[in-house]
Amino acid sequence: MLRRVLCTVLFMGALPSLAEASQGHITVVLLGATGDLAKKYLWQGLFQLYMDQVSSGHSFTFHGAALTALEPGQRLMFDVLKKLTCPPDESPDRCAVLKDQFLKLSQYHQLKTAENYTVLNREIETLLRQEGLKEAGRIFYFSVPPFAYTEIARHINSSCRPPPGAWLRVVLEKPFGHDLESAQQLAAELTGFFREEEMYRVDHYLGKQAVAHILPFRDQNRQFLDPIWNRHHVERVEIVLKETVDAKGRTSFYEQYGVIRDVLQNHLTEALMFLTMELPANVSRAEEVLQCKLQAFQSLRGLEKNSAVLGQYQAYASQVQEELQKAQDYISTTPTFAGVLIHNDNLRWEGVPFLLTSGKALDERVGYVRVLFKNRAYCTQSETLRDAGHSQCKAKQIIFYIGHGILNTPAVLVSRNLFRPVMPEGSWREAVGQSDLHIFGQPLSDYYVYSPVKERDAYSVLISNIYHGRKDFFITTENLLASWGFWTPLLDSISHQPLRLYPGGVENQHLLDFEMVSGEVAFTLGEPVEQRLMPDDYRTVQSKFRQSPLVSAWSEDLISQLASDIEKAASRTVARSGQFHLALSGGSSPVVLFQRLTRHHYAFPWKHTHIWLVDERCVPLTDTESNFFSLHNHLLQSVRVPYFNVHPMPVHLHQRLCVEEDRGTELYAKEIMALVANASFDLVLLGVGTDGHTASLFPRSENGLEGAQTVVLTESPVKPHQRMSLSLPLINRARQVFVLVLGKGKHDITTLLSRVGHEPRKWPISGVSPSSGQLVWYVDYEALLG
Amino acid sequence: MLRRVLCTVLFMGALPSLAEASQGHITVVLLGATGDLAKKYLWQGLFQLYMDQVSSGHSFTFHGAALTALEPGQRLMFDVLKKLTCPPDESPDRCAVLKDQFLKLSQYHQLKTAENYTVLNREIETLLRQEGLKEAGRIFYFSVPPFAYTEIARHINSSCRPPPGAWLRVVLEKPFGHDLESAQQLAAELTGFFREEEMYRVDHYLGKQAVAHILPFRDQNRQFLDPIWNRHHVERVEIVLKETVDAKGRTSFYEQYGVIRDVLQNHLTEALMFLTMELPANVSRAEEVLQCKLQAFQSLRGLEKNSAVLGQYQAYASQVQEELQKAQDYISTTPTFAGVLIHNDNLRWEGVPFLLTSGKALDERVGYVRVLFKNRAYCTQSETLRDAGHSQCKAKQIIFYIGHGILNTPAVLVSRNLFRPVMPEGSWREAVGQSDLHIFGQPLSDYYVYSPVKERDAYSVLISNIYHGRKDFFITTENLLASWGFWTPLLDSISHQPLRLYPGGVENQHLLDFEMVSGEVAFTLGEPVEQRLMPDDYRTVQSKFRQSPLVSAWSEDLISQLASDIEKAASRTVARSGQFHLALSGGSSPVVLFQRLTRHHYAFPWKHTHIWLVDERCVPLTDTESNFFSLHNHLLQSVRVPYFNVHPMPVHLHQRLCVEEDRGTELYAKEIMALVANASFDLVLLGVGTDGHTASLFPRSENGLEGAQTVVLTESPVKPHQRMSLSLPLINRARQVFVLVLGKGKHDITTLLSRVGHEPRKWPISGVSPSSGQLVWYVDYEALLG
Repeated sequence: MLRRVLCTVLFMGALPSLAEASQGHITVVLLGATGDLAKKYLWQGLFQLYMDQVSSGHSFTFHGAALTALEPGQRLMFDVLKKLTCPPDESPDRCAVLKDQFLKLSQYHQLKTAENYTVLNREIETLLRQEGLKEAGRIFYFSVPPFAYTEIARHINSSCRPPPGAWLRVVLEKPFGHDLESAQQLAAELTGFFREEEMYRVDHYLGKQAVAHILPFRDQNRQFLDPIWNRHHVERVEIVLKETVDAKGRTSFYEQYGVIRDVLQNHLTEALMFLTMELPANVSRAEEVLQCKLQAFQSLRGLEKNSAVLGQYQAYASQVQEELQKAQDYISTTPTFAGVLIHNDNLRWEGVPFLLTSGKALDERVGYVRVLFKNRAYCTQSETLRDAGHSQCKAKQIIFYIGHGILNTPAVLVSRNLFRPVMPEGSWREAVGQSDLHIFGQPLSDYYVYSPVKERDAYSVLISNIYHGRKDFFITTENLLASWGFWTPLLDSISHQPLRLYPGGVENQHLLDFEMVSGEVAFTLGEPVEQRLMPDDYRTVQSKFRQSPLVSAWSEDLISQLASDIEKAASRTVARSGQFHLALSGGSSPVVLFQRLTRHHYAFPWKHTHIWLVDERCVPLTDTESNFFSLHNHLLQSVRVPYFNVHPMPVHLHQRLCVEEDRGTELYAKEIMALVANASFDLVLLGVGTDGHTASLFPRSENGLEGAQTVVLTESPVKPHQRMSLSLPLINRARQVFVLVLGKGKHDITTLLSRVGHEPRKWPISGVSPSSGQLVWYVDYEALLG
Repeated sequence: MLRRVLCTVLFMGALPSLAEASQGHITVVLLGATGDLAKKYLWQGLFQLYMDQVSSGHSFTFHGAALTALEPGQRLMFDVLKKLTCPPDESPDRCAVLKDQFLKLSQYHQLKTAENYTVLNREIETLLRQEGLKEAGRIFYFSVPPFAYTEIARHINSSCRPPPGAWLRVVLEKPFGHDLESAQQLAAELTGFFREEEMYRVDHYLGKQAVAHILPFRDQNRQFLDPIWNRHHVERVEIVLKETVDAKGRTSFYEQYGVIRDVLQNHLTEALMFLTMELPANVSRAEEVLQCKLQAFQSLRGLEKNSAVLGQYQAYASQVQEELQKAQDYISTTPTFAGVLIHNDNLRWEGVPFLLTSGKALDERVGYVRVLFKNRAYCTQSETLRDAGHSQCKAKQIIFYIGHGILNTPAVLVSRNLFRPVMPEGSWREAVGQSDLHIFGQPLSDYYVYSPVKERDAYSVLISNIYHGRKDFFITTENLLASWGFWTPLLDSISHQPLRLYPGGVENQHLLDFEMVSGEVAFTLGEPVEQRLMPDDYRTVQSKFRQSPLVSAWSEDLISQLASDIEKAASRTVARSGQFHLALSGGSSPVVLFQRLTRHHYAFPWKHTHIWLVDERCVPLTDTESNFFSLHNHLLQSVRVPYFNVHPMPVHLHQRLCVEEDRGTELYAKEIMALVANASFDLVLLGVGTDGHTASLFPRSENGLEGAQTVVLTESPVKPHQRMSLSLPLINRARQVFVLVLGKGKHDITTLLSRVGHEPRKWPISGVSPSSGQLVWYVDYEALLG
């Protein structure tokens, strides 16, 4: 077949001879050649590539492949190819000739078995040898479902690699997993077959002209943006992709993924990264861009379930029931709308809300990235006399308009009172002429508006980038896993989250509007139609455990209840006695609590709070293993506790750690006596180990379980062995003791503790029993119920 | 005369007999009865009082007084009284009768000599005795220039006090001084004659209905406002009084005062206080309101010269030259326009900009207080489909519209998407009906709009409040002095400030627009016409002092230069070595520096900075005398230096202070050795005492001036005597040493130091001479030039 095409080509003489090409030959294999994506975009993109590069010195052959047998496959494929269109900026004559050539350079293969791949490889080699062509490289475009990836990858790796000196580029289409674990697994499998630089993971948003221009725009306008691209000047950022269509006909895919996996985890997150990352010195060097992007991922604040509002259009449930043959009472938990509030904790962006929003069955189709600046000006001239567009009192914004909407074209808009942007002349041009349009609250005339000189669809752009080896337009494995790492905790937690039902289209009215309140989001309208999945899951259960009050809930709710209770205790105590003495434990559970306290409890009386340590490891305070170090990083750096009120344990004296004659325990005991009335802490927060230890009091400890000593040195069975700890008698003098127990790993000890009595030598935690204070257990469902 | 009036009254029988009044008689004496204010407002206000209170059970007589002789004064006064008008809400018949009565109850007196006052008092007593009236009280209204206050007050106090059981109320009109000192002096004089509760200082803005309603509004709408009346929700606040008139004809007054003293220090500041103060439990109890107001004054951040932009309309200079007979080259430094940015450092308002703006010869006459809330919402519905007024995405604001402007009436406006306010039904009513007006960027229909049921001018309101003894509508001495205390530093510093000249009216265009940048304000348009008063005053002078570089400027500029230089050193050092070791001195001069650093240097690498003390007093760290305590309050509480990087001097060990055998100096020396490479600090900041001491190294000190010891105990000639200090040899190992010298008090030592050589035993500062580092002197003009 290939021979025949080539013969024809050579016979016609209308084509440059393949052999004349000095840059070498490129073989493109499109797997899934008759699928939807191929039909709609990929063949057109390949044709565009051919038109653009026919004179580049490279020669090309295009191989469509699918599971279908040769004859019908061939017919199907050529039906698609015949419908390829000519772009408006191309002369019809040239295009017709090139289309004819393109068809002749294309052929169909059935690729099913290992044998098929070997044959394909042999055919490519034969052709090249016969024509005396040097091989430049091979592109394999995977337009197939992800379950087929591994098999195909194996075959390519074993039978279809180009010879040394020529490159291999495999192009992968999402989904790349549905959470961190599955993405890691898929990545690991692919890494067995391909090197990182061989893989081109497509996020077609990176081919959208407005999205692709975010980084170049930031680079070319550094002079204007440097002083304002930060939290002191940016009010908020909106990254939005609204669709009017719904999921009808695609529910078999959609029901497994939902809007967050479909759009937010990939497209909108990439736009977010382009906005927030530090600018590399050279924005076209893929490796530099990647490093900056990965850093930006690291500074994202973790999402909690209240970081998102979720909805589902009303017809979705019945579409799923029908298309997936589910029962009438089947309830889908898949969101078709999401609004997510993202915070970035680095110095540049701290406090700036990034709102990511997407949904199906909304009132309009539009995509944009909008950066709104704070209004810093006071205009003394009265409103009525101000010029349009240049008044410093009008909103200042930069918008990357991805497409559709009222503009119906990609565009970059910059408020005229901000600055006149530098734009690359060859590829973007300024829009001129009058317009009555209003956009983002202002007439279009208030903006400098630029649109692409040639409007290109995303796949044409991407295929060109594959050809040019521009890896910065694709998602590397590290990038992918960083994104899944960020989104997975939210995806896990929202299975408990109610979905707001919405009718779809303009009928939605204000149902999906949402508001930010202290770092969380909530729908603006109350009491709407909501599909409550597990109505009892949200309540915190109040009960008894070991004769003391028990608070139980899912961990996030539990932490939020605990934080509130601690604030209440603090406020009450400060009102009564002017100060609040709080002793905190180390370990990982309190970290979540500290974050909750710093981000949601602005009224906490930190100024009057003394922070004590329940226990400490015998390492320097600046060691990452130190309890104080963790407390410092997660709590003290974010709140204003006076220096004098912070009391780390003196484990490091005279340049040595926990040496008895340095009398650190005595020193701490004296400090407590001097400052805490009756050595009775207002609140002690404890944890429990799987062996029943609490503080650093381990089973059968020689010190601290009884006796007069209030601060003791102990030995831990795990490293670092040496510890300093408050003693059980001192803990039991506290006014309140809260014990926090989180996670499945604690289920066994929790069960055990519910049965045993007061046996501190076996299980030190069982000896916690405040003599005149109150003990409360905070145990999450996983620890309680397993 | 009075007898005659009373006879007539009694003869007519149309009046209630004075004797029948059971609540007692009130005597009103208006001093300056024929002046402008009296003509324009006061007589009308007194007439209104009479109309309102004629049936209250009190009887009244009204005494106009002035320096003019009896006959002409009488004529002048009755000419005014005849023109009194009837309010539209009063029936014409009743008003005519009452006006007739009012005229008959009024008489004129010449009050010039002590004798005149004695006579007046005798007449009042005689009348009351003859008519058998009990005296309720006397009101003396001072509508006279302030230079006359003391004399009149003396006479009233000695000759015109009512008998025991009746009250005295003296009403004073501004100006009450022109800065803190003169206000204190005037207040002290008045306090010699009147008790605090007897004085009613008028700020007629407190009689403006919209201003007077700020506190009641906050009180009655606590439910809605409590959650949002804070920095988390308020974006900014504007308090604005724009005038179209200029100062023509009044320059003899205006040239001494200017816009800040005329309007900002009093009217706008009072509105600011009503907005920012904590709400007392009972808003109508004057004492509670006062306490909350004074607290609010305390939390205002001090103003610096860059807190304000100032302007002068172009015609002002020639008006002054003409009216005050000044030479043609006379330059007035009086601002006629000011925009001031005020910050409040308490937890409620921290970070919210309060913009106070006023000026003459502007484009419109309007007064308002505008509270703009942050937009927290994302509206998923597209713009074009959103309802007006209720969309959560529209600006949310509360406006107290004082008057004039396009509304041309006092009003309270609340955005409809915020809440429907509770308003007192009797006195405010909702405006209904259509309007095409746009106000603050939105159609009037976007607001709930309320206006007063009866529109009253400020003086009617105030006179009624004097009658009712509502002291919360007047300015107490403490209030007045707090306000002057706040404004005086700005007034002092702006004599160096250039004024922007503006043409006046709509011609001003954008000339007076201004913007906020990191806590300061500046005009938006650059390179305008500015009247530079002392063009060389603003530059920082670079020169030499004791063979080392000298930087000199006015203290504020000097501090800002020093802060920048420290930041530069820090950034450079961190870039090179990863950390920056900074040793800081105690005393008051560094406090201003610390504030500058915390408020203007957001990029300072605090995370990598170690803070050391140059010296310390032997007091506990939590003692207000401690250098560390001051450093903690003014610097450490506002920036994020890690706990481990803070190194207070160990003056307090084993519960005792600076005992040699506790070896605190050794401990600190070891800490320095362990952390600072070569014990060479990156930067040491020193001060100089009038005796030439630096750090805590005093003349003829036994320790620290030489020798191997790096940290020493020393003796100060002033309390607290015991000190700990870095030694001179250690200081001289630093890479950079900056010496900061501020204020006239340091002029003598500065002069001396410029002449002497290296004599550390006489003047320890003269021994500062880094062996391989750099020394820079930062000396302000006052210290340098005296």
